[in-house]
Amino acid sequence: MRIGVYGLGRFGAFWAGLLAETFNVYGYSRNPDRLTPKGVNRVSFDELFDCQVLFLCNAISSMEEVLKDISGHLQPGTLVVDSCSVKVYPINLMKAILPEEVGILGTHPMFGPDSAKISVEGLPIVLCAERLRDEQYVYWKDRFRAMGLVIQEMTADEHDREAAYTQGITHFIGRTLNEMNLHPSAIGTAGYSGLLDIIKQTCNDPWQLFIDLQKYNPYTSDMRDDLHHGLEKMLNTFDSIESLGDLDG
Amino acid sequence: MRIGVYGLGRFGAFWAGLLAETFNVYGYSRNPDRLTPKGVNRVSFDELFDCQVLFLCNAISSMEEVLKDISGHLQPGTLVVDSCSVKVYPINLMKAILPEEVGILGTHPMFGPDSAKISVEGLPIVLCAERLRDEQYVYWKDRFRAMGLVIQEMTADEHDREAAYTQGITHFIGRTLNEMNLHPSAIGTAGYSGLLDIIKQTCNDPWQLFIDLQKYNPYTSDMRDDLHHGLEKMLNTFDSIESLGDLDG
Repeated sequence: MRIGVYGLGRFGAFWAGLLAETFNVYGYSRNPDRLTPKGVNRVSFDELFDCQVLFLCNAISSMEEVLKDISGHLQPGTLVVDSCSVKVYPINLMKAILPEEVGILGTHPMFGPDSAKISVEGLPIVLCAERLRDEQYVYWKDRFRAMGLVIQEMTADEHDREAAYTQGITHFIGRTLNEMNLHPSAIGTAGYSGLLDIIKQTCNDPWQLFIDLQKYNPYTSDMRDDLHHGLEKMLNTFDSIESLGDLDG
Repeated sequence: MRIGVYGLGRFGAFWAGLLAETFNVYGYSRNPDRLTPKGVNRVSFDELFDCQVLFLCNAISSMEEVLKDISGHLQPGTLVVDSCSVKVYPINLMKAILPEEVGILGTHPMFGPDSAKISVEGLPIVLCAERLRDEQYVYWKDRFRAMGLVIQEMTADEHDREAAYTQGITHFIGRTLNEMNLHPSAIGTAGYSGLLDIIKQTCNDPWQLFIDLQKYNPYTSDMRDDLHHGLEKMLNTFDSIESLGDLDG
């Protein structure tokens, strides 16, 4: 079986390299400057459609354009698997744009090159079985399990709701703290080191991913409102308390 | 040498137990319900003043009252060591209230029962040598080093400035996120687990410590302003972007 990977950015390169440990992987990128990950065969756009399974690793915001580009080239029976950090939006697009004879599996690998630096063992991957044969679905669940991943099956809507308050808030906090130019400190507590790790991890990902993750997940708006509300409440606690640190100087 | 510990709350009990691994430690608490840590001798208020060194582990906000209570009882030559999470405020109080014949050493052990659960090896302790003999200072530096701690010498003002943007912001973020009732998730990323750890660690400490840490450190006001500014900037990024998640449903 030939496995195609469309998109060789930060996540796509990582994912293609990981899949190449098990499969014959054929990678394509619109950007000729992208490096080819170890074990991956670089192919042209046209050659991508010789693959029976096509993983999409492009940005969420480019999904509509990419789907329209590939739609007419896909052979009947091809399985298209997205890997977006949101699920309702790309799955609706795939259902609307891809031909009926093409299978659709939504996935969200809940990790990346930083968090899976050592191993993907035990890390979660969300699966939304949208339009594929039972035996295909069983096959891919077995393969992901064999890679060490823990499968979480849910609807796209369930995913987006849960991801807004887990991955979504983590990225939002990381980017917000990054605005403050915090730096490692000789007197940093363990908790502070944890905070710096979160900033580093979230800010290593592309800015586009951060924006898309907030913009294309309808539940992140509630999450941001909740965070705003929580912060205002905490700040108000201290507005009424005058700083006493200077008084006895 | 007899080592006294005034205050057996969450941190005091932990610190007294740790010191008791090396010294003869005599613990006192105004609250008779506090448990006596392993290896520590429980004493009355009066017996506390037979100690040559007295560690204060009371809340920052009770420092003025406690210093006034003990001041008339201290024997000349006693070394008083505070362990507050802020330094300018308690050191100024100690200088103002304690008799001239009593030594003053400011410390901030940058850890607690959670972060030092396994060991204190390699963890930082801030020292502000305010009013003590050179040989006394050298002695305590040696003792703290022997306990595995890494000594950070600085002025009280340097400490407060640095702690506001390390420990202070960590506690503020932990308490703010705690308002959102986040919970462990099967699809949590590594970064999200880190966020939950920070909430747990900071919220395990007493609410009073959180309030005092913000209120008695004059630099936390700037920190909160910076955080507020950073969050508003991030939120504004998305105010102008309409959520697109629903559009293609």
